[in-house]
Amino acid sequence: MAEADACPFCSPAEQRFAFAARGGFRAYYNVAPILPGHVLVVPERHVQSLMGLDDDELGNFFRFARTVTAFVLAAFEGSGFDWSIQEGEDAGQSVDHLHLHVIPRHAGDLPSPGDWYPRLVESRSVRIDDATRPRLTDSERTAIVAQLKERWADCP
Amino acid sequence: MAEADACPFCSPAEQRFAFAARGGFRAYYNVAPILPGHVLVVPERHVQSLMGLDDDELGNFFRFARTVTAFVLAAFEGSGFDWSIQEGEDAGQSVDHLHLHVIPRHAGDLPSPGDWYPRLVESRSVRIDDATRPRLTDSERTAIVAQLKERWADCP
Repeated sequence: MAEADACPFCSPAEQRFAFAARGGFRAYYNVAPILPGHVLVVPERHVQSLMGLDDDELGNFFRFARTVTAFVLAAFEGSGFDWSIQEGEDAGQSVDHLHLHVIPRHAGDLPSPGDWYPRLVESRSVRIDDATRPRLTDSERTAIVAQLKERWADCP
Repeated sequence: MAEADACPFCSPAEQRFAFAARGGFRAYYNVAPILPGHVLVVPERHVQSLMGLDDDELGNFFRFARTVTAFVLAAFEGSGFDWSIQEGEDAGQSVDHLHLHVIPRHAGDLPSPGDWYPRLVESRSVRIDDATRPRLTDSERTAIVAQLKERWADCP
């Protein structure tokens, strides 16, 4: 359990920032969103790989992710979204617990629609230096998560 | 049907470059791969949005995509992969038929693991000018697809 112990998605402290949970999956508001509404969808159990879910879990993971995506699109009034999974260190995976990035988009939110990914990479690399990391404070993130939790509680 | 008529994934000419098909889904070898093994997973029917699949289709789409991913990882000896969906013009969607990018990765294949996405954007933007587009010729692509088809036919 050492790996899970060190995993941010498995940490009780981080779980305060999950705004939705259902059927063994959670959705977190990202600590360093590259755009408003940038969330992460994860399985509750510590699985590094997409290959580690069984067939039913895989379907349920993406159904939950789609529900969360529709939810954040409504909450942040997005007109589209980007989904991304990096699997394995060589592919850019930075936390060894499967996570899907969901990023609501708006016309003109970035100089070019494709600029979200370099920002994702940049936001990750600057985590090395906590002093300069453009991250939300706990209270900022708590406030956003509280609003999303309340809205999620109204969902069927 | 005008939209489907103009859609490359619905075109019989393009369907020659699908190396795998199962349960209403296809996998294409990309005409302009950013790395070897870059494939696209699509539903056969013309659906623009991930929201346009029913719950069963959604699960089947991602199960097929995972099978294809394991297949191309074996075929191209990848150690990881990137998955990406852009939904909507504001998110960078360039073909209005749902497609998941699957990109096998290797240690050191790009200067930085995160460089795949700028390349994806770049390969898309240069399509505007066919003369300079770094794409495979039909015969190069046909040869790769033939090998993948043969290998896929051996899969359980």
